Amino acid sequence: MKIESVDFFYLSMPEVLDIGDGSQDALLVRIRAGGLEGWGECETSPLTSIASYVCPMSHSACKPIKYSLEGKHINSVEDIQKISESVHSNSFDLLQADHTLSGINIALWDLLGKKLEEPIYKLLGYKKAFPKLPYASQLFGNNPDETFAKAKHTVEAGFKAIKFGWGNFGEGTLENDIAHLEAARRGAGQDCFLMIDAGTVWENDFNEAEKRLAALKKINAYWLEEPFANLSVNEYKKLSTSLPKIPLAGGEGCNNFTQAKLMIQYGGLSFIQIDAGRVGGISPAKQVADLADEFGISYVNHSFTSHLALSASIQPYAGKEKHNICEYPIEPKQLAIDISSTKLTPGKNGYLQLPEKTGLGICVDIEAIKKYLVDIEIKLKGKNIYYTPDL
Amino acid sequence: MKIESVDFFYLSMPEVLDIGDGSQDALLVRIRAGGLEGWGECETSPLTSIASYVCPMSHSACKPIKYSLEGKHINSVEDIQKISESVHSNSFDLLQADHTLSGINIALWDLLGKKLEEPIYKLLGYKKAFPKLPYASQLFGNNPDETFAKAKHTVEAGFKAIKFGWGNFGEGTLENDIAHLEAARRGAGQDCFLMIDAGTVWENDFNEAEKRLAALKKINAYWLEEPFANLSVNEYKKLSTSLPKIPLAGGEGCNNFTQAKLMIQYGGLSFIQIDAGRVGGISPAKQVADLADEFGISYVNHSFTSHLALSASIQPYAGKEKHNICEYPIEPKQLAIDISSTKLTPGKNGYLQLPEKTGLGICVDIEAIKKYLVDIEIKLKGKNIYYTPDL
Repeated sequence: MKIESVDFFYLSMPEVLDIGDGSQDALLVRIRAGGLEGWGECETSPLTSIASYVCPMSHSACKPIKYSLEGKHINSVEDIQKISESVHSNSFDLLQADHTLSGINIALWDLLGKKLEEPIYKLLGYKKAFPKLPYASQLFGNNPDETFAKAKHTVEAGFKAIKFGWGNFGEGTLENDIAHLEAARRGAGQDCFLMIDAGTVWENDFNEAEKRLAALKKINAYWLEEPFANLSVNEYKKLSTSLPKIPLAGGEGCNNFTQAKLMIQYGGLSFIQIDAGRVGGISPAKQVADLADEFGISYVNHSFTSHLALSASIQPYAGKEKHNICEYPIEPKQLAIDISSTKLTPGKNGYLQLPEKTGLGICVDIEAIKKYLVDIEIKLKGKNIYYTPDL
Repeated sequence: MKIESVDFFYLSMPEVLDIGDGSQDALLVRIRAGGLEGWGECETSPLTSIASYVCPMSHSACKPIKYSLEGKHINSVEDIQKISESVHSNSFDLLQADHTLSGINIALWDLLGKKLEEPIYKLLGYKKAFPKLPYASQLFGNNPDETFAKAKHTVEAGFKAIKFGWGNFGEGTLENDIAHLEAARRGAGQDCFLMIDAGTVWENDFNEAEKRLAALKKINAYWLEEPFANLSVNEYKKLSTSLPKIPLAGGEGCNNFTQAKLMIQYGGLSFIQIDAGRVGGISPAKQVADLADEFGISYVNHSFTSHLALSASIQPYAGKEKHNICEYPIEPKQLAIDISSTKLTPGKNGYLQLPEKTGLGICVDIEAIKKYLVDIEIKLKGKNIYYTPDL
């Protein structure tokens, strides 16, 4: 199948708030070939990624991403690999490339799955998709009482695992953080897995992170996520061997396989978290999942937006039974909900199962998303080089 | 001084060729405050970086770069640091940010130098700028005879050090590479420092790189640069301890201090090469230079475009006498030459000296660059969010 079109759709809530909620906008990618279409989603700044697709060439290693897509054929898993490698060699001085490639790579897998009539995880070599235990991923409350209420509500809704993150955690006093942590545990009860996400708040400040270890131990935190900036492996390693011992999770900031490998090899992580929408897509995410196996640590998806992105983020480790936890956003904005008519919801046993359908198994709801479409037009020397395509 | 405007100018040669020559376009940054203006240059895809400056906010950690600049004050070195940290925390999920910040950071240093009437290297804490031995940086010839002629011509022009890179080196047969290497040495003569730049051609393929070591030893190569992709530290480390021993250089692909630290700590480098136009500017480049001292390796600038970028790339290690080599592009496109009326040329002794003038010490040639200006217009929901400012 020859690629006929690669189209981007920038969707946004009418108002975007200054909070750590990545579900407020989205960049969808639609690739058409052979009468079929594949869909992907980039975890990115939409306008910046659109620019990286259509920008003029600067030199041989700084070409627009479209250079590696236009006119190419897609018939096999190897063809997807070839396109990803081609983007890396043609655009490696274009920093934004990996975020944009991510949605493209996902759409290519979706397209190929539809052509070969298989779910993506089967094309990746897995025989079956094992159920994952979803942890209800959400922001801390604005105060400990709110955090308590959110935790309680989430357990009552049937979740056996909860993650709280961002908000002002780590930015204020130690006492405030302890109050949030204890409220979260009280609300969640003793049997619930409870994860805490610091959202890189301490950057490279080991001491600020270390101060929280005792409180995290006291509430029996399942992991501490992203205490430091991505690739700050020395600080990660030091914290991973500090007492009391709290398993560390990180890696969502990785933009390619090489970065994830560094985090695994040098960071002392117990959990490597990969967002297929920014690591370069499903292909490098699968490579990272295999590497996690080699190192004896757990792979976890990162996903905080739509169920299209959720399916894409789980495919890379769907067939790995031991890696049995998945992130599940429970308070996305309406936009993220409306993106797909297919919803992935945990079963009665509390576990999440990928759809046994071709590709991602997710149906994009074209009518529903029209109202979120942000019209973009880019002119270069008076010539229109980008306009929003028809949905 | 309150920042009054941050303006981008996308300049391009009429035709951009598919070769490894980064001087074919440029993104200049002009920042105005207190009746003064500072200039910087990003090593970037211009349109993509412009988009990263004006894009709408996606969430709290994915804000446009302008968010961290508009209305801010700039009166001290600490203010520059604050702005860089602010970009990192406000835009850390905007992958393109570091390339755009680079030109902004350089322009802020230029502006502050003009206000405080000091060259930038003095604001960085250096007492004097030591002369550097420039190596004439250029692409391999299309065949060994051309490489020979280029080397011979360069030595005759007075250069005591030459670097060849890119072209098809490493992509064809070993024999072809050996022919180029030997031609380079014959043309350069025995006394010339001769560096070889593989431009990441072998990505992660250790064996392809190892095959070239004997030939590199035979021509007494001063270093082998970028055999592998940026951050492929395991492959770098393994090659650095392989025989025959060739000193390794790398790091131009680093987009921030943390990445450069990983390359130094784990990659077995003898030379860390930093482009101030993509690492985030002069501030992180200075941090890397200090770290190179700690690790007892050499810092070298990366610079392949204008003399504005060249000055910016040398300031971070100007005062370090031991780090005495600098990259010097000798065949830039006319655009890169025309950017500044100030030219940095090696003295009769063959050494290059930074100008003893305020800021970068470089005067931008407004009239000369007008003809290269690429007009850009970005509309969002029918509203113009970017148009090319007046030069």
